[in-house]
Amino acid sequence: MEPIKVGLLGFGTVGSGTFTVLRRNQEEIKRRAGRGIEISRVAVRMPSKAQVAKDEGIAVTDDFGAVVDDPSIDIVCEMIGGTGFARDLVLRAIANGKHVVTANKALLAVHGTEIFQAARAKGVMVAFEAAVAGGIPIIKALREGLTANRIEYIAGIINGTTNYILSEMRDRGLDFATALKAAQELGYAEADPTFDIEGVDAAHKVTIMSAIAFGVPVQFDRAYVEGISKLAAIDIKYAEDLGYRIKLLGIARRTEKGIELRTHPTLVPEKRLLATVEGAMNAVVVHGDAVGTTLYYGKGAGAEPTASAVVADLVDVTRLHTADPEHRVPHLAFQPDALSNTPILPIDDVTSGYYLRLRVADVTGVLANITRILAEKGISIDALLQKESEEVGGANKGETDIILITHETLEKNANAAIAEIEALSTVVSKVTKLRMAALN
Amino acid sequence: MEPIKVGLLGFGTVGSGTFTVLRRNQEEIKRRAGRGIEISRVAVRMPSKAQVAKDEGIAVTDDFGAVVDDPSIDIVCEMIGGTGFARDLVLRAIANGKHVVTANKALLAVHGTEIFQAARAKGVMVAFEAAVAGGIPIIKALREGLTANRIEYIAGIINGTTNYILSEMRDRGLDFATALKAAQELGYAEADPTFDIEGVDAAHKVTIMSAIAFGVPVQFDRAYVEGISKLAAIDIKYAEDLGYRIKLLGIARRTEKGIELRTHPTLVPEKRLLATVEGAMNAVVVHGDAVGTTLYYGKGAGAEPTASAVVADLVDVTRLHTADPEHRVPHLAFQPDALSNTPILPIDDVTSGYYLRLRVADVTGVLANITRILAEKGISIDALLQKESEEVGGANKGETDIILITHETLEKNANAAIAEIEALSTVVSKVTKLRMAALN
Repeated sequence: MEPIKVGLLGFGTVGSGTFTVLRRNQEEIKRRAGRGIEISRVAVRMPSKAQVAKDEGIAVTDDFGAVVDDPSIDIVCEMIGGTGFARDLVLRAIANGKHVVTANKALLAVHGTEIFQAARAKGVMVAFEAAVAGGIPIIKALREGLTANRIEYIAGIINGTTNYILSEMRDRGLDFATALKAAQELGYAEADPTFDIEGVDAAHKVTIMSAIAFGVPVQFDRAYVEGISKLAAIDIKYAEDLGYRIKLLGIARRTEKGIELRTHPTLVPEKRLLATVEGAMNAVVVHGDAVGTTLYYGKGAGAEPTASAVVADLVDVTRLHTADPEHRVPHLAFQPDALSNTPILPIDDVTSGYYLRLRVADVTGVLANITRILAEKGISIDALLQKESEEVGGANKGETDIILITHETLEKNANAAIAEIEALSTVVSKVTKLRMAALN
Repeated sequence: MEPIKVGLLGFGTVGSGTFTVLRRNQEEIKRRAGRGIEISRVAVRMPSKAQVAKDEGIAVTDDFGAVVDDPSIDIVCEMIGGTGFARDLVLRAIANGKHVVTANKALLAVHGTEIFQAARAKGVMVAFEAAVAGGIPIIKALREGLTANRIEYIAGIINGTTNYILSEMRDRGLDFATALKAAQELGYAEADPTFDIEGVDAAHKVTIMSAIAFGVPVQFDRAYVEGISKLAAIDIKYAEDLGYRIKLLGIARRTEKGIELRTHPTLVPEKRLLATVEGAMNAVVVHGDAVGTTLYYGKGAGAEPTASAVVADLVDVTRLHTADPEHRVPHLAFQPDALSNTPILPIDDVTSGYYLRLRVADVTGVLANITRILAEKGISIDALLQKESEEVGGANKGETDIILITHETLEKNANAAIAEIEALSTVVSKVTKLRMAALN
């Protein structure tokens, strides 16, 4: 049989990685797919960057539209990124009846509904394993491997840059700015790291997973997003003293009132496997009612790990492209006419345990006032750590730090209690609040 | 659309779990599959055991053949186990043109080639996610999620019983017999635990994975199988002193000369995630050339975790059963006409690091003789631990234990060195040999 023809849009890290892996493993891939998979055209802004493709006799152009419109191409592989130009090209490829493979989480988290509808109308596939957790086949696990389950929650370390920075902050006692700089020098963080460190990238990914897990549309605009740029080294230290590690988690959780969809620094008990995931690695925990807790671990970024996912999608599309569209796996696991409108909860309605740190005047009665306020809000205390004045850096004489771990409560209750605590005359700082995840 | 009809053979732990999960999550499963999945008949030796199915109006019989021959049934779910009766029924179901879902690792590891050929001839699917690592979707990950990769190795904790026993031996300092008895009392080990503790169950599972990973036929008769029943508590202790945990691993590894396929107690560096998998949990590491190291973790046994995998297969078959057989995912990942005849290596030709423990007379020169023998065989020493006589339980006065960790060498070299060491007059015990896995 003739090889299936792929048009590659973009030849950066992921695009060139895809080219490399497809070429190196072409025999093995063909033995699996039953048919060759051939990159027949590449579009890239600067064609000189794709010289290795040219050397293989592949047509390289800077005209992206020409590739998307090329009638000889079966699958368009979108490796550009971003939500503007990439969206136009993907929709145009779909309109031309081409299948699409993409690694673009931003595009799907924001425009997924539009893109999947367009694909359905044309009877083509949009595959996106590479959009979440790089080489880890988490989309396939969620969408196909766990179909028996009512998924209860997903919690993932799905941004390698921030996990690397957090690992360095803990291991070497660095503050955020220093750790970020080191990460940039080593290539683990980009020159403009905003999307990573502010949690946007992780939030894009967990938004996609939430749709697959719960059968709801992708709704990035409802996601709560908080990064690690304001995280203090001292909280990593205190958390460790209490038996926790701080990780940037993307969390999607089903509750009776709706779906929690949130990304923020999170205290994880140190005994959980997720707490031991270090450096730039990714890991996702999925809890289903039948299967219990499962975990998926691997490299979440990089040329070849991401290409691993892209090529797996190419093989899937190659296998299934002649199949009746009604019998393919739905893009978001659930049949498109069976999506639910379960609401995404605002952050105020999220339930969590909290880590609270505050500086107080070290006088009689200060703790009694704080615990009274928490009790009045129905918040019970799980652990308490009081640091002697001399241990606390930057504190004035006669001041000390109190760290509280609360049992689960509504975020709005926690916030109300914090406001009252901050109003106490004996409390001399703002309250630092971090969320926890038990991951039972 | 009418529900797809499933005939269930067996109603023990997995059969009844499948019934429970399908019933409880039927709405959610239907939203994913696009079609209801209905157990329409159950065959069980003692129909009284399937009363819950009868209560739902499902026909229950003790005539297994009647279910397999029932023209109204689309998918036969084989949940009996074993290689005799189960094989006959599966082949008969296939001959009748029915798709088969099975959790039976022994059947596929031993008779897989025959069964997959029969299925191919009739254009039906045989799905077996539940046969390896229970609820963890490792078959799907290997077969579809990692198709881009040249798989380098698989190493898995794929038998919960033995992992539970090993965890108890380490945590509580128990010997094997005591830990086994405790596991039996808690239901983690069966009355006749032979298949689990002697490594046969794990070897069945890694045999199946080796076929999928490397594109070779299932060849259980070539697998090297060694269990944990002869493992001494002292080796777990010494291994820990040296920074390792002992796990029963199923290992399938590609080398230049052929494929290693082996199951045995293995020293794993304590920093590896696999080393931290405790109790009855399962985890599989897969290393691919593009993706690097990935890990999959979850419950490897039990009614609902296993049912999670069975039902996922039912959904897959439901989605794909109208598809052109040539475009389905091949049973063993590779197209049946693209299997390779790469040989499975005999254990003598396997490469490993070794842990060697021996008791010696504590006299001058004993270590010099041992290290000379190793050097002559080209085996270099990575670590050495000598225990003072008084620390060593059961030793006669003037004797002590030496523990050696070697760098990688051929098994036959290690054995030759061991034979020479045992012939030394100063060596007063047999040498205990355990294999190691770096899992880089």
